[in-house]
Amino acid sequence: MSYFKNVSQVKYEGPNSNNPFAFKYYNPEEQINGQSMEEFMRFAVSYWHTFTGEGADPFGAGTAVRPYDHLKGMDLAKARVEASFEFFEKLDVPFFCFHDFDVAPEADNLSETFKNLDEIVAMIKDYMKTSKTKLLWNTANMFTHPRWTFGAATAPNADVFAYAAAKVKKGLEIGKELGSENYVFWGGREGYETLLNTDMKLELDNLARFFHMAKDYAKEIGFDAQFLIEPKPKEPTKHQYDFDVATGLAFLHQYGLQDVFKFNIEANHATLAGHTFEHELHLARINGMLGSVDANQGDTLLGWDTDEFPTDLYSTTLAMYEIIKNNGLGTGGLNFDAKVRRGSFDTDDLFHAHIAGMDSFAIGTKVAKRLLEDKVLEDFIADRYKSYTEGIGKDIVEGNTDFHKLSAHALEMGTITNNKSGRQENLRAILNKYLLEATQG
Amino acid sequence: MSYFKNVSQVKYEGPNSNNPFAFKYYNPEEQINGQSMEEFMRFAVSYWHTFTGEGADPFGAGTAVRPYDHLKGMDLAKARVEASFEFFEKLDVPFFCFHDFDVAPEADNLSETFKNLDEIVAMIKDYMKTSKTKLLWNTANMFTHPRWTFGAATAPNADVFAYAAAKVKKGLEIGKELGSENYVFWGGREGYETLLNTDMKLELDNLARFFHMAKDYAKEIGFDAQFLIEPKPKEPTKHQYDFDVATGLAFLHQYGLQDVFKFNIEANHATLAGHTFEHELHLARINGMLGSVDANQGDTLLGWDTDEFPTDLYSTTLAMYEIIKNNGLGTGGLNFDAKVRRGSFDTDDLFHAHIAGMDSFAIGTKVAKRLLEDKVLEDFIADRYKSYTEGIGKDIVEGNTDFHKLSAHALEMGTITNNKSGRQENLRAILNKYLLEATQG
Amino acid sequence: MSYFKNVSQVKYEGPNSNNPFAFKYYNPEEQINGQSMEEFMRFAVSYWHTFTGEGADPFGAGTAVRPYDHLKGMDLAKARVEASFEFFEKLDVPFFCFHDFDVAPEADNLSETFKNLDEIVAMIKDYMKTSKTKLLWNTANMFTHPRWTFGAATAPNADVFAYAAAKVKKGLEIGKELGSENYVFWGGREGYETLLNTDMKLELDNLARFFHMAKDYAKEIGFDAQFLIEPKPKEPTKHQYDFDVATGLAFLHQYGLQDVFKFNIEANHATLAGHTFEHELHLARINGMLGSVDANQGDTLLGWDTDEFPTDLYSTTLAMYEIIKNNGLGTGGLNFDAKVRRGSFDTDDLFHAHIAGMDSFAIGTKVAKRLLEDKVLEDFIADRYKSYTEGIGKDIVEGNTDFHKLSAHALEMGTITNNKSGRQENLRAILNKYLLEATQG
Amino acid sequence: MSYFKNVSQVKYEGPNSNNPFAFKYYNPEEQINGQSMEEFMRFAVSYWHTFTGEGADPFGAGTAVRPYDHLKGMDLAKARVEASFEFFEKLDVPFFCFHDFDVAPEADNLSETFKNLDEIVAMIKDYMKTSKTKLLWNTANMFTHPRWTFGAATAPNADVFAYAAAKVKKGLEIGKELGSENYVFWGGREGYETLLNTDMKLELDNLARFFHMAKDYAKEIGFDAQFLIEPKPKEPTKHQYDFDVATGLAFLHQYGLQDVFKFNIEANHATLAGHTFEHELHLARINGMLGSVDANQGDTLLGWDTDEFPTDLYSTTLAMYEIIKNNGLGTGGLNFDAKVRRGSFDTDDLFHAHIAGMDSFAIGTKVAKRLLEDKVLEDFIADRYKSYTEGIGKDIVEGNTDFHKLSAHALEMGTITNNKSGRQENLRAILNKYLLEATQG
Ligand SMILES: [Co+2]
Ligand SMILES: [Co+2]
Ligand SMILES: [Co+2]
Ligand SMILES: [Co+2]
Ligand SMILES: [Co+2]
Ligand SMILES: [Co+2]
Ligand SMILES: [Co+2]
Ligand SMILES: [Co+2]
Repeated sequence: MSYFKNVSQVKYEGPNSNNPFAFKYYNPEEQINGQSMEEFMRFAVSYWHTFTGEGADPFGAGTAVRPYDHLKGMDLAKARVEASFEFFEKLDVPFFCFHDFDVAPEADNLSETFKNLDEIVAMIKDYMKTSKTKLLWNTANMFTHPRWTFGAATAPNADVFAYAAAKVKKGLEIGKELGSENYVFWGGREGYETLLNTDMKLELDNLARFFHMAKDYAKEIGFDAQFLIEPKPKEPTKHQYDFDVATGLAFLHQYGLQDVFKFNIEANHATLAGHTFEHELHLARINGMLGSVDANQGDTLLGWDTDEFPTDLYSTTLAMYEIIKNNGLGTGGLNFDAKVRRGSFDTDDLFHAHIAGMDSFAIGTKVAKRLLEDKVLEDFIADRYKSYTEGIGKDIVEGNTDFHKLSAHALEMGTITNNKSGRQENLRAILNKYLLEATQG
Repeated sequence: MSYFKNVSQVKYEGPNSNNPFAFKYYNPEEQINGQSMEEFMRFAVSYWHTFTGEGADPFGAGTAVRPYDHLKGMDLAKARVEASFEFFEKLDVPFFCFHDFDVAPEADNLSETFKNLDEIVAMIKDYMKTSKTKLLWNTANMFTHPRWTFGAATAPNADVFAYAAAKVKKGLEIGKELGSENYVFWGGREGYETLLNTDMKLELDNLARFFHMAKDYAKEIGFDAQFLIEPKPKEPTKHQYDFDVATGLAFLHQYGLQDVFKFNIEANHATLAGHTFEHELHLARINGMLGSVDANQGDTLLGWDTDEFPTDLYSTTLAMYEIIKNNGLGTGGLNFDAKVRRGSFDTDDLFHAHIAGMDSFAIGTKVAKRLLEDKVLEDFIADRYKSYTEGIGKDIVEGNTDFHKLSAHALEMGTITNNKSGRQENLRAILNKYLLEATQG
Repeated sequence: MSYFKNVSQVKYEGPNSNNPFAFKYYNPEEQINGQSMEEFMRFAVSYWHTFTGEGADPFGAGTAVRPYDHLKGMDLAKARVEASFEFFEKLDVPFFCFHDFDVAPEADNLSETFKNLDEIVAMIKDYMKTSKTKLLWNTANMFTHPRWTFGAATAPNADVFAYAAAKVKKGLEIGKELGSENYVFWGGREGYETLLNTDMKLELDNLARFFHMAKDYAKEIGFDAQFLIEPKPKEPTKHQYDFDVATGLAFLHQYGLQDVFKFNIEANHATLAGHTFEHELHLARINGMLGSVDANQGDTLLGWDTDEFPTDLYSTTLAMYEIIKNNGLGTGGLNFDAKVRRGSFDTDDLFHAHIAGMDSFAIGTKVAKRLLEDKVLEDFIADRYKSYTEGIGKDIVEGNTDFHKLSAHALEMGTITNNKSGRQENLRAILNKYLLEATQG
Repeated sequence: MSYFKNVSQVKYEGPNSNNPFAFKYYNPEEQINGQSMEEFMRFAVSYWHTFTGEGADPFGAGTAVRPYDHLKGMDLAKARVEASFEFFEKLDVPFFCFHDFDVAPEADNLSETFKNLDEIVAMIKDYMKTSKTKLLWNTANMFTHPRWTFGAATAPNADVFAYAAAKVKKGLEIGKELGSENYVFWGGREGYETLLNTDMKLELDNLARFFHMAKDYAKEIGFDAQFLIEPKPKEPTKHQYDFDVATGLAFLHQYGLQDVFKFNIEANHATLAGHTFEHELHLARINGMLGSVDANQGDTLLGWDTDEFPTDLYSTTLAMYEIIKNNGLGTGGLNFDAKVRRGSFDTDDLFHAHIAGMDSFAIGTKVAKRLLEDKVLEDFIADRYKSYTEGIGKDIVEGNTDFHKLSAHALEMGTITNNKSGRQENLRAILNKYLLEATQG
């Protein structure tokens, strides 16, 4: 049977197409940095938002109308697997991502739960044999069930820590089984609600212990996926321990984990932390820690994680700018950690939304590529910092000076007369020009 | 002459006093942790807000009415020194803090500027001989003059870097001359306005180079003050490099500076970064990096650094809770980096504001002290995490387990049944009770 | 049977009590403004948070452990009614509030649903015969079910408008049946997600049409409860039409509804709109529109409606200040639109939380009362604006001047020399003093 | 002499131009809605940001390098007038706007100040005789000088109220003298810092009194300019009385001023109030109150009014969409209430910034025009609300129904089955397509 009858294969038809179920800008075969766009951008569908999510919000029940709504339990889980691979194929997307309990329901106890999981994982593996779509990353949901109320690896209850370990152990095994290229750790409820009842030091120490054990186990079973931390500043807890990339860097350095992890950076998490998406990507990149991307967008006038499909072309351009400078995402990819709005409740919207997101990132890629080819910003920046390539500036960079020499230099100058305008308004106008011309010719 | 004729000596008169120019809760001689309150809390007056500040804001000129308003240049600078020591004495405050150009005006070139500074520093040193008030910390203003438009140590112009080095070199010498116990680095304009024109990697590298040279020079001249980084997330730049404590920790670890610096934590900077004041103090404390405090408060409904005098007793209580747990601030102190509102423009307000701040922190100290003596929160927390002191929890903490053992433990349990309520509402009610009883009996 | 076995009657035991299930500050019999505290404060329990709510959040399932968790459908609904009246009695609270589907489950069609409702309402009415607890207000839930995805009275679908009318018609009948003193209209999903698909003018016109019909129907059936609009700025929709009190005032004036409604003001909705709680109360009060209060608090570092139990004594004090100046709330009351934290999941927490809220408002009442008795702020304000009681100021207020006379006056003055300090810091210190002394003597 | 030697006439050169001092998208002669773009868009230069502003911020002195920096007092004022008309001509802009003290310095007393003003106004009038650039609006600065610390018409000091009246009286006379098409009232410091010392009711009453007197005086002197209120939520005061459009509407209705005023809507003020720019424009438009626009943009990750030049094409598109639907701005215009960044300090940046803003609004106009011509959104919306044009929906809109009929209709339906997806993601993709095609062909 078909789950998505309104839509046949989604193809690239170019900017002049008015077919709502065609790509207008994302051409999988177009070349970027010596690869096809498909290879370079590595788009992934998020299983949770697209197949498991029901469109609920804190004030309302699910609105999603899905062809498997009449099913329950394992039957529902299996129908979702079938639907998902039909969707992957129709969208022609190279990757997907999931949490354990996106794909299989929890049972009354852990061993039954693992049996459910094994059955579905086997089914997925079977589908993957004939599908081009691979697993970008998997992870374990350690935030939905009440047992995780106070966190998983940072829970005040050691039994919960053990339960989390069992889940991640299983997750690593599943990742190996399905050939996952990464394994993601989003903090979930690793954080606190109030310092009045919290031992933050113990919780952070435990989190590090957990990560070290996860690393050891992955090594033991020969699962060589990239580990990824996904920072988020707040929500669901008041303070999430993996607040942002900088906080993650501090943690990894303090606990000797800097070589084990890279970052999975989500746009909406960046803005909730008070940063732009490109800031977080940039900071990860210059530290060699840019691993993967949860491609979505937020609404900066709202204070929660709206997980919208990404359509802001400024954001996709500046993100792809960082990614191209990073020579791509390595084993990572662009995962749509995004949900259709609650009012976009029919299955057509799932296609509309992914097409909107993929086209928006394709446009961003084209703009960023031309900006880099023309060295528009690179040349401006090189000129701006030129003073560090000669004279006293070169001495500074090369470590050949000290406060004595620098002070003498300054006293000799007496005053500064050679600052140059930063030209922010002009640079923004140039960015607009490149944006408007991106899809022409 | 007297600059503050309306006020004679401010003294502790107790809670029943209605004298607006008396302390009602801050009793310098009261004991806390084996010290007098004066010794433990180490209050400091900020020279910039109290003597140099004029009450301007982005939409308006200065409103402050000061007895030295008719003066200019070095005459004004000298009058301010006289006024400041009268103020310190009348307020009976043990410390003050300043930026170089709070105390002496800039001249046309750097060497003239240093001469101005030398003259005023000599005058201050002279006053300090007969005053009890000592220098908590000094620093260099590297943000007001247009030369700092794009930063100081992170400027794209190497001459500016050199100029900054000259200023900090001088600042370290002044600190040594006046016996300062700390030296503060607030980022000023160390940050960026837009990534479109910024080489963040070079800027961060340069910042680290600058700090290493500062450390070397301090060592060379035998100035053993504690170096302090003061995090702030935004304002004046869009992104300040020292965003918050966690960001500072990452930076210090990456550049091998973790043993050179502690943090100077400002309440309003914490809230601008999306954290509570106590969060930042706590995070610094558990990392052994809590150096000093800029005691103020913000308005969380406003998006800029309002630098209000601290009167929120919840905030002062939770701050002092961290400070007492830290066994005090060492060489640091509680510096009022706070300005009277623009509408509080007469000199009486300077006293009202400092008295309000000192009394508020004294109340916070009393509440925190009793909470700790009664182990109200400590016992609750100990019980909440008790599972890590025995059985599998102990194994986790002691490193005697792995994913195999933990998973076996979890599978045996099957499910979790022993989570306990976090009691947040009850703990808040208890906090209120302690607050209301703090100043009784 | 008893649903809350751990707790017997909650009584006032005074500040020295350490009984966690006793009031320490709320003494129902204490006099305030010629009434007992119970009569003046009119506390109400919110049925939805306390009996229907399950402790879910956007990232997790319900955590609440309740004695009726094993029941379903109408059995569950009935058990909740029994539990609620036990709770009201043990807490000794004079009022409660509910949405229709807090108390009775929706059936497959509207007439069956109304039958469920009738059955439960009859049961509630029966309980009310022997209970002191009365109905402060009821309302209709028009946001949870998917039919309300795009709003109720502002839905783009006229059938949904009709469905909403049927629900409110029933709600008004229930209100009359149970003697409700008010009827509340919280906007739910009356707002928009994106202007790209929205006809805001038609939606606002329809909302006004709906309110006029509701007014007519209430009049027709002789239900003379006060109608209340509850403003909220955002969440669940991106823009809620009843953004804040000022927005509500504009709407009511534009559609001739200003005499039909007052406002039900919620603390956390105020802060989400960028206002303090007291601002919204004050604005409603000076417009004669302060109807009732949803007593809770938010976390201004978080961007969503946290609906916390109110324990911030500054907030309760400044709220009660407005309420006392309003001579109380008339038919309104202090309804705890607040939920225990997800981690406060046992039934004891329901008592802890309500006691914390009631005690906190009682303390606020005591502080506010003394501030008003001593005219601490009133006298300062009267003096500050004294210039409007004489001379040119009196002419302004009485309408006896114009730009000619005023300009002549100003030109004669030439300049302004008589502004006086606003003394904000000193006033805050005084507020602290009153807070600390509130519960003494 | 020439003040801007680097730039000769700025002309339209089309999208392929790489001349930084040419328009690439703004073609003054291109037709829009039966007018030339110049006539339709009515761009204005803000005197304060462009000629008076010095590039200071709360942490730093002015950075702007201007050819008249060596002058002072009236000489400076006159040089600025000369420079401004050279700038207007080179930019070929049809309008400008100013506050009284942007153009002439304050003297020691009011009558001297007025003399300064008279002299400069005469000079401006003279320049206007041979310039095409007209006065879009003028206003009075009642926020910079310390006398306005507590507001102008809402000051607690009646003398200040009188002083404000004298200033606005003069402003109205100047507006008449120079043929201004509007007169703007931005609140400045009309608001409060703390309710602890504020009589909000008296202040709002006084504000209304002031407006009525202003209206009367304008009528008396035959100055028939449109009066405009410019809402802003916060900054400089904690709460500005003209918070947003809705708050302004409530105020105008309550005080019978709704026919006297329209709104001057500023993008950055909208976002500070938690609204999108287009929301505020839309709300004003459907109330017939859209008067004029302060065209700028903010940074939603920063909490203050950054007044950036507008370059966000989504924002300019959605703004122009509202303006075209409004049939243009009548006597209003698009005033660049925007300042070059502090780091964009040379005079070239003034041209770069205005060109960027004008081009960005021109692009927005092209996109909005095509969206409206193709009825892309209009048709979707008409279809979405079609149910209100027939059957029960028509009855609702025409007032031919009541709760009895509506309830009967709902009970007959039993349930709702005809909601349709809102298609938000697809609409955003379509918006992107129109954006990318706007400047093609
Ligand atoms: Co994510
Ligand atoms: Co997210
Ligand atoms: Co500070
Ligand atoms: Co500050
Ligand atoms: Co509410
Ligand atoms: Co709420
Ligand atoms: Co403006
Ligand atoms: Co502005």
